[in-house]
Amino acid sequence: MKCLIIGSGPSGYTAAIYTARADLKPVLYTGLLIGGQLTKTSDVENYPGYPDGIMGPRMMENFHKQASRMGTDLRIGFVSAVDFSQSPYKVTIDDNKVVLADSVIIATGATPKWLGLASEQQYAGHGVSACATCDGYFFKGEDVAIVGAGDTAAEEALHLSKLCRKVYMLVRKSGFKATKTMIRRVENIPNIEVRFNVEVKEILGDGQKVNGAQLYNNVTLQETRLDIKGIFLAIGHRPNTEVFKAWIDMDDVGYIKTKNCTTKTNIPGIFCCGDAQDADYRQAVTAAGSGCMAALDCERYLLAMEHGVIEEMTDKVSG
Amino acid sequence: MKCLIIGSGPSGYTAAIYTARADLKPVLYTGLLIGGQLTKTSDVENYPGYPDGIMGPRMMENFHKQASRMGTDLRIGFVSAVDFSQSPYKVTIDDNKVVLADSVIIATGATPKWLGLASEQQYAGHGVSACATCDGYFFKGEDVAIVGAGDTAAEEALHLSKLCRKVYMLVRKSGFKATKTMIRRVENIPNIEVRFNVEVKEILGDGQKVNGAQLYNNVTLQETRLDIKGIFLAIGHRPNTEVFKAWIDMDDVGYIKTKNCTTKTNIPGIFCCGDAQDADYRQAVTAAGSGCMAALDCERYLLAMEHGVIEEMTDKVSG
Repeated sequence: MKCLIIGSGPSGYTAAIYTARADLKPVLYTGLLIGGQLTKTSDVENYPGYPDGIMGPRMMENFHKQASRMGTDLRIGFVSAVDFSQSPYKVTIDDNKVVLADSVIIATGATPKWLGLASEQQYAGHGVSACATCDGYFFKGEDVAIVGAGDTAAEEALHLSKLCRKVYMLVRKSGFKATKTMIRRVENIPNIEVRFNVEVKEILGDGQKVNGAQLYNNVTLQETRLDIKGIFLAIGHRPNTEVFKAWIDMDDVGYIKTKNCTTKTNIPGIFCCGDAQDADYRQAVTAAGSGCMAALDCERYLLAMEHGVIEEMTDKVSG
Repeated sequence: MKCLIIGSGPSGYTAAIYTARADLKPVLYTGLLIGGQLTKTSDVENYPGYPDGIMGPRMMENFHKQASRMGTDLRIGFVSAVDFSQSPYKVTIDDNKVVLADSVIIATGATPKWLGLASEQQYAGHGVSACATCDGYFFKGEDVAIVGAGDTAAEEALHLSKLCRKVYMLVRKSGFKATKTMIRRVENIPNIEVRFNVEVKEILGDGQKVNGAQLYNNVTLQETRLDIKGIFLAIGHRPNTEVFKAWIDMDDVGYIKTKNCTTKTNIPGIFCCGDAQDADYRQAVTAAGSGCMAALDCERYLLAMEHGVIEEMTDKVSG
């Protein structure tokens, strides 16, 4: 195949729409979570194009349909191994099938870290969120909590403090992991209350929506109930890039490094878009934008490759 | 005002949606072409989220509504002058009104160059297009022409050659402006026919859609009719950045330079997104993605500024 796309979030589907319309006949493998992180949310209000908002899973259905209508070969399966030593690149699907691709677009996304509570999964998208930038607005005027101790947690606490009445920042250890500047900013905000040595034991709700959290102080061993309408997790993300580790340049966390604000990786013909390469913005629309970039970068690469071969042959004939 | 957004294409409206939801109370001035370049197109199939496609003007109405519903103060007017010498930044609207803004998001887009024919405006979106990547797919299996002599024209000719039966590349002068590599690629494609010294005298159609072009050879002075279903202009774009020239770093063409793959310009608190800073991808979804980035960059800047002031005061009190 000319073009293999790995992943089915906003970036993967957008890469599919563009490569299909460029007649690159893309094949897309969905990965294990078909539709990506947005299938774990409910209302999406910030993806431009839906004036009244849309449900996350519905939105990803739209992306899927559009990629399909444009002619993408959409396949269910996950990438279990790769060999990028030479082109065409070898990609193993579901541990048992090998496909060869002239170009690969990595759009495997990232997975937010969760606390590991059943109640958290029950209320995901109904008061539990892994993205304050996305969902903070739904809790305007309410009391909320954010779990985390790093710069992202601090930044999201600041974002929430503008929207919510009260923001509890719950830190498991006795101190922050965030940088000094961020700590100072958080401490300066009257409606942020930081609680150290606090763990979330259970997320509470009425069966439909969150209305509180059962907290546990790991020093005093005391339990308390916190009345909140929303709880935000900011304890990190894991980019889904493990399988590419031996081949593709990444940072320490596993985010893939791209070159000069393009989607090019260290290997020609391998591109990366979406959250797998973005520790910073992580929005559906930024992922979609980078999926389009990957498609255009890939199209240019394939054209050059094709003509590289033709030119070589021409050179031989004329020489 | 805290945040002023200039421009009403995909990037401006997306910046508005995000800054409004972050409670930055953005004010957006639309510029002269409300909705931007997409209001000059018809069907849009490649913006992810619309499985059956959508009309360009309708899509921009959706963006407008969404920005409005989130609380953006949308105002009709164009920026006639700016003074970015110090914050708050001074922006003159319609030559007669000055507004002050702590931060500015430039989303003024770019204007494709046109041939200057009435028939071209008549058939814009109905056979005449300034974006082969966007619209080439609508002419699958058909004969089309592309006007231009540079690398973009060559690249778009190659894109079209995969989709269309025949691609006429019409070059006004006696040679290309494109780089050698690109010329070589174009010349290697059997279904691309390059015609030099050719100008388009009129675009022909049945009142609804394009069906040909009247060509004029500026050496032989001969006129001929070309039967085509689509004509693509690739004679350049002009970024709408003239008014910022004295303050903001740009390249020779006028594209604004942004830093380290963010939307930051050379002046703190002034951000740029969309086609005004993108000579390369220029798609609605990449513009929207960068609009989101600008909003998040801007939110971080305003938080830092706010707390910068608080910290200074705190320092004075404690010192």
